[in-house]
Amino acid sequence: MNWNLEDYQQELVDIRRYLHMHPELSFKEEKTKRYIADYLEQLNIEVERDVGGNGVVGYIEGSLPGPTVALRADFDALPIQDSKDVPYKSTVAGVMHACGHDGHTAMLLITAKILVQHRNQLAGRIVLIHQHAEELIPGGAKSMIEAGVLEDVDYVFGTHTACYLPTGTIGFCPGPAYANADRFTLNIKGQGGHGAAPHETKDAIIAASQLIAQFQTIISRSVNPIETAVLTIGEFKSGDAFNVIADSAYLSGTVRTYRDYTKQMVKTRMEQLIGAIEVGYQVSITFNYEDGYPALINPEKETLWLKQKVESAGFADEVIIQPTSLGGEDFSYFLQQRPGTYFYTGVMNEDKNAVYPHHHPNFDLDEDGLLYGVQTFLALIENITELK
Amino acid sequence: MNWNLEDYQQELVDIRRYLHMHPELSFKEEKTKRYIADYLEQLNIEVERDVGGNGVVGYIEGSLPGPTVALRADFDALPIQDSKDVPYKSTVAGVMHACGHDGHTAMLLITAKILVQHRNQLAGRIVLIHQHAEELIPGGAKSMIEAGVLEDVDYVFGTHTACYLPTGTIGFCPGPAYANADRFTLNIKGQGGHGAAPHETKDAIIAASQLIAQFQTIISRSVNPIETAVLTIGEFKSGDAFNVIADSAYLSGTVRTYRDYTKQMVKTRMEQLIGAIEVGYQVSITFNYEDGYPALINPEKETLWLKQKVESAGFADEVIIQPTSLGGEDFSYFLQQRPGTYFYTGVMNEDKNAVYPHHHPNFDLDEDGLLYGVQTFLALIENITELK
Amino acid sequence: MNWNLEDYQQELVDIRRYLHMHPELSFKEEKTKRYIADYLEQLNIEVERDVGGNGVVGYIEGSLPGPTVALRADFDALPIQDSKDVPYKSTVAGVMHACGHDGHTAMLLITAKILVQHRNQLAGRIVLIHQHAEELIPGGAKSMIEAGVLEDVDYVFGTHTACYLPTGTIGFCPGPAYANADRFTLNIKGQGGHGAAPHETKDAIIAASQLIAQFQTIISRSVNPIETAVLTIGEFKSGDAFNVIADSAYLSGTVRTYRDYTKQMVKTRMEQLIGAIEVGYQVSITFNYEDGYPALINPEKETLWLKQKVESAGFADEVIIQPTSLGGEDFSYFLQQRPGTYFYTGVMNEDKNAVYPHHHPNFDLDEDGLLYGVQTFLALIENITELK
Amino acid sequence: MNWNLEDYQQELVDIRRYLHMHPELSFKEEKTKRYIADYLEQLNIEVERDVGGNGVVGYIEGSLPGPTVALRADFDALPIQDSKDVPYKSTVAGVMHACGHDGHTAMLLITAKILVQHRNQLAGRIVLIHQHAEELIPGGAKSMIEAGVLEDVDYVFGTHTACYLPTGTIGFCPGPAYANADRFTLNIKGQGGHGAAPHETKDAIIAASQLIAQFQTIISRSVNPIETAVLTIGEFKSGDAFNVIADSAYLSGTVRTYRDYTKQMVKTRMEQLIGAIEVGYQVSITFNYEDGYPALINPEKETLWLKQKVESAGFADEVIIQPTSLGGEDFSYFLQQRPGTYFYTGVMNEDKNAVYPHHHPNFDLDEDGLLYGVQTFLALIENITELK
Repeated sequence: MNWNLEDYQQELVDIRRYLHMHPELSFKEEKTKRYIADYLEQLNIEVERDVGGNGVVGYIEGSLPGPTVALRADFDALPIQDSKDVPYKSTVAGVMHACGHDGHTAMLLITAKILVQHRNQLAGRIVLIHQHAEELIPGGAKSMIEAGVLEDVDYVFGTHTACYLPTGTIGFCPGPAYANADRFTLNIKGQGGHGAAPHETKDAIIAASQLIAQFQTIISRSVNPIETAVLTIGEFKSGDAFNVIADSAYLSGTVRTYRDYTKQMVKTRMEQLIGAIEVGYQVSITFNYEDGYPALINPEKETLWLKQKVESAGFADEVIIQPTSLGGEDFSYFLQQRPGTYFYTGVMNEDKNAVYPHHHPNFDLDEDGLLYGVQTFLALIENITELK
Repeated sequence: MNWNLEDYQQELVDIRRYLHMHPELSFKEEKTKRYIADYLEQLNIEVERDVGGNGVVGYIEGSLPGPTVALRADFDALPIQDSKDVPYKSTVAGVMHACGHDGHTAMLLITAKILVQHRNQLAGRIVLIHQHAEELIPGGAKSMIEAGVLEDVDYVFGTHTACYLPTGTIGFCPGPAYANADRFTLNIKGQGGHGAAPHETKDAIIAASQLIAQFQTIISRSVNPIETAVLTIGEFKSGDAFNVIADSAYLSGTVRTYRDYTKQMVKTRMEQLIGAIEVGYQVSITFNYEDGYPALINPEKETLWLKQKVESAGFADEVIIQPTSLGGEDFSYFLQQRPGTYFYTGVMNEDKNAVYPHHHPNFDLDEDGLLYGVQTFLALIENITELK
Repeated sequence: MNWNLEDYQQELVDIRRYLHMHPELSFKEEKTKRYIADYLEQLNIEVERDVGGNGVVGYIEGSLPGPTVALRADFDALPIQDSKDVPYKSTVAGVMHACGHDGHTAMLLITAKILVQHRNQLAGRIVLIHQHAEELIPGGAKSMIEAGVLEDVDYVFGTHTACYLPTGTIGFCPGPAYANADRFTLNIKGQGGHGAAPHETKDAIIAASQLIAQFQTIISRSVNPIETAVLTIGEFKSGDAFNVIADSAYLSGTVRTYRDYTKQMVKTRMEQLIGAIEVGYQVSITFNYEDGYPALINPEKETLWLKQKVESAGFADEVIIQPTSLGGEDFSYFLQQRPGTYFYTGVMNEDKNAVYPHHHPNFDLDEDGLLYGVQTFLALIENITELK
Repeated sequence: MNWNLEDYQQELVDIRRYLHMHPELSFKEEKTKRYIADYLEQLNIEVERDVGGNGVVGYIEGSLPGPTVALRADFDALPIQDSKDVPYKSTVAGVMHACGHDGHTAMLLITAKILVQHRNQLAGRIVLIHQHAEELIPGGAKSMIEAGVLEDVDYVFGTHTACYLPTGTIGFCPGPAYANADRFTLNIKGQGGHGAAPHETKDAIIAASQLIAQFQTIISRSVNPIETAVLTIGEFKSGDAFNVIADSAYLSGTVRTYRDYTKQMVKTRMEQLIGAIEVGYQVSITFNYEDGYPALINPEKETLWLKQKVESAGFADEVIIQPTSLGGEDFSYFLQQRPGTYFYTGVMNEDKNAVYPHHHPNFDLDEDGLLYGVQTFLALIENITELK
């Protein structure tokens, strides 16, 4: 099909820049959700507002028979101060689209606009999932699913902009792509005292240090070596004076895994070692473990199918298999329910200073890259009847 | 000798209360030093002002031949808010005589007043050392010695009020009585990074925890078991977020020892283990070790001699040998230069609510106890010619 | 092609049992090598003896044009006492085919016998590599390659019997299948002494224990979480008496990795931590690291191709992808030089008591399973011209 | 009193050499006990044989009124092969008086011979305790006391030869002189497995290493810094192969303390940390703790009294206060029941090659030193009525 993409390029940029200038934090996306819904309604697309929170859902009915395919874009921003010096810089102090969700939304809106103009050539039904709150647990995906957004949906696809892939590159990651990304805190309560009288105390710094040393054996000895797991202590806060033995210590950290089995095992081993330190150092420890998003596992079949479609279509400069990441992403909830894949749209461009990592105050994306994401969406819709 | 002590009891209380109401911080004892010097001059005692800082020195010449004996009392206060509800409560916000130095000074001034009235019966010469700044390193003792206060002095004695000994008790501690009380800080500089990518970092929390675990072996394996040493980590501060690997960690702590040999060995072992962690975890560590006051070692001979004199004199309810402490005290500088002893004057009294530990906001001392300290000074002066 | 396999089944068993009864240790396979070479020569197959040691190589020329394919079977046995009660039990005390190499050899000899009878229908050339000494580093593969056995060879294939796969199953493992399996020893030299005088010693048990604790951080923090690495301490030997501090400690262990990069990194981190313990505990450590066989990486293309051929041929009850192992296997040297794959031939059968793990004194294999391995060899030769 | 010591010097040497040539192991002192009892009976001393085992007790009644004083010497030898080249070398293979008990016995027998000849000048009663089995727990002291040897005894004294004090020196150690010297073993039972599959095992070497690391905190943090405690692991035995994870580990070690309170605390902390390792590493640990001899605490009064008597007597070249030791000695049982002291008799002499430590195969003692021990015994008996 000839989509006349050049006709949409400017608008793609305009949408992205509008969103970039007006970022909103997770669960507080009031203007953004209205902007999206209004845009879709102006295209005569049927829209549901406030789906599972601030989510917006649009429906495009193709004229030909075919499966129902959901395309998802997230639209919340981050509590980061924009440090770039560009005309489209964030106008909201301390809030910034530093992860590229503005680009995700622009890609999906333009995709919708193109698709709606080819409705009579389209097979099946397209569900446009504009999701709020990806950056903040519990995220928007879960509640949108609970609100029924995946009912009657056969496949679900989405993309993330990739600051480490050059514009023109589309990446795929069959299998584990994002991890279970969990958070925990530990409050160790001992008994303080004079720095010269350790025998009258339960030294919280000693207990906490020993706990950290013990935790290393979970990864080194208890995890199956061919599985993946990370256990990081990110914070250690204890004590107020050099000559006073601390009565408590605070630790926080994260556990990353792909398999639930591994995650549960890590948690069980942590509990055992925490119990051990309580017994061994006569302290009491409060362990608070919060599940993050589940691991995102891209089904091999749909992932390799789409990769092959993009290769055949020939628009991309490069189509790659990219390594897994241990970050988190709530698109995983969609893939727990339906087949599909989550692919990567390259937006790195040194000439445009689009070289900073996601979540960096100088983050920017090469808007030319977005067009490749749109083309990937179109290629998948065009060929969707192939998938069985 | 009959000293008619009852004639001085009220003035002892008055002096102590005046000082208690007008405390001054270490190295800032402007009013206190004048008060002391003026008091001594009114007794016709020869006074030197501003000796080695805010120190005050008085000289009483006995009529008979004999040795020169220095008696020392310190007079600085602490940055603590007085929480007692008594008429003589501190009038200075946030400053308080919470360690009993007001009592020390009152005892020595009254002792001077009594002695000066018996000058013609006294043997030798008495040097009254009113020392500023005991609570804050580098302390006043060192600079007063450097100013020559011990020249021609044969013996030096002092006392500390003891909140844990009942009024009427005098305590002695032959041998090690206070410790080398040193302070150190450690800044561990690694390389931070994403909590899910430990292999790209040098985890400062891991390095610091392992260092603490290693340090335990200094005390357990490197120190001679019949020597005394403590190595405490009082503070561990590292990291800002649960999912970010910390690039640095700050530790502070204290080392307590009695013997210089042991202290140097602990320090050397710390340096070796720090070097080991630098090599092993590829981090760099800044180690800052500050010497505190040296250990206070009471010479056995003079200590047991004075104990026996107090026993013979019979004024005390109880004369005890008390266990050593791992605290610090700059009277140690005097005992490094001259023989003598540092004894303890009981000031605990439950009936008067004088039960709180030193440095506590509710600390108070039983003024009746001070008279026993004065009597101990008098007993030692009376018998000083015995000492050889 | 119809190979009339049933005609060879009894001889397959006979050969395997003969070898099972006459096992020979690695590098000492005198009778076995003659047995194999004589067998092949009786089939009018051109044979080279003593290739790179005790290796035997046979050559079958097909009548049709095609690639040269090497098939490899190893034939050494283990220093284990056979504990089975069967007529074909090992006749050599303390030596046993406990890893199935007798089966490997029997499969390859029968394959050769069949192929030679279909020479005029065969494409290309077949190189029969009968390899000695797989069980003992440095192994026979390396020296056979150095002797030129892979010259002019295009592909190389081999199989291992699998005690954990039921008879009728053929397994494939694309990618890493066996690990770099390295060995190391550590001799820690401290200074011994009386158990009550630790300060006069360098306690080797303390240093060694701390080293082991530190080593855990290599796996937990230094290895990329998506890579695989194991560091095991298998032996810790130190001390002769409860009340004497040990002057030395001996440790041995193994490192398992798939990637050379990871292996080198683990080794470097070990060296750094060893250096750290030397500095920190003032001991000297001798570190001896011996490379084992390199990791065996099955090329995806040839592996999946053969899997598909076996599936199409339809003789197997089940064709599976099997998980990777962290064991070692010197077939890896062949795959470093040429494409091909190393597959698994199921020989587990509860009814025949063939349920014990490899290297177990009761190990046995279900001889019926061997026929499936022969068929896999035949299927690959039959279709070899497909591979490009 | 004039004891005419020179008359006894040769016999002192003869007795010592006889015993040195005929050493007997602890609890097997058949010839030695007869030798001693016969010797005493020939002096017309009343003798009890087989007191609490192989013990021998003699009684000398003085003619004047006075207290009953026990003098003790032990007489067992060690399982060591005598390596000296002297005429009086041990005639028993593998058994040797390597700790000086032959000298102890010779001193006491000669003391008895002298005293009995001055019976009419002696005050009180002298009990000669010749004790068997000092070298082997439970020792002979306990059973001799249980047999009543201390009934009616007022004071008890003994001496140990000192290889580190020159002949002519008598040493005293008021307060703690020998330690509680206890033994323990630890059997850690995990679950073994393949060196590349740690996740299927409970690694006993890891658990044991971590236990040792934890144990360090007992000494560094739980023991009062002014108390003495040693916890040494002397043996660590685990594993049979570099590539197999060990299923068990054996540790043995010793705990040394002076105070029962400290000993119990160390034991309790060990139990807590053992429990912690069981929980944390899912292993089971058998902890066997055997009490050794209790600490030997020399009462200050009797010790300093005897020191002063020796100084006044003037026979010694040097009288010293010697530092405490963390070794064990069952004379402690006697001092738990009665006042007295255990002093040291110098027997080091470079000219006579008497320079090796106790328990060394080349150990020898300068027999001239023994006379000083005899003189100390005599001085104490002569002055015993002074003690109150």
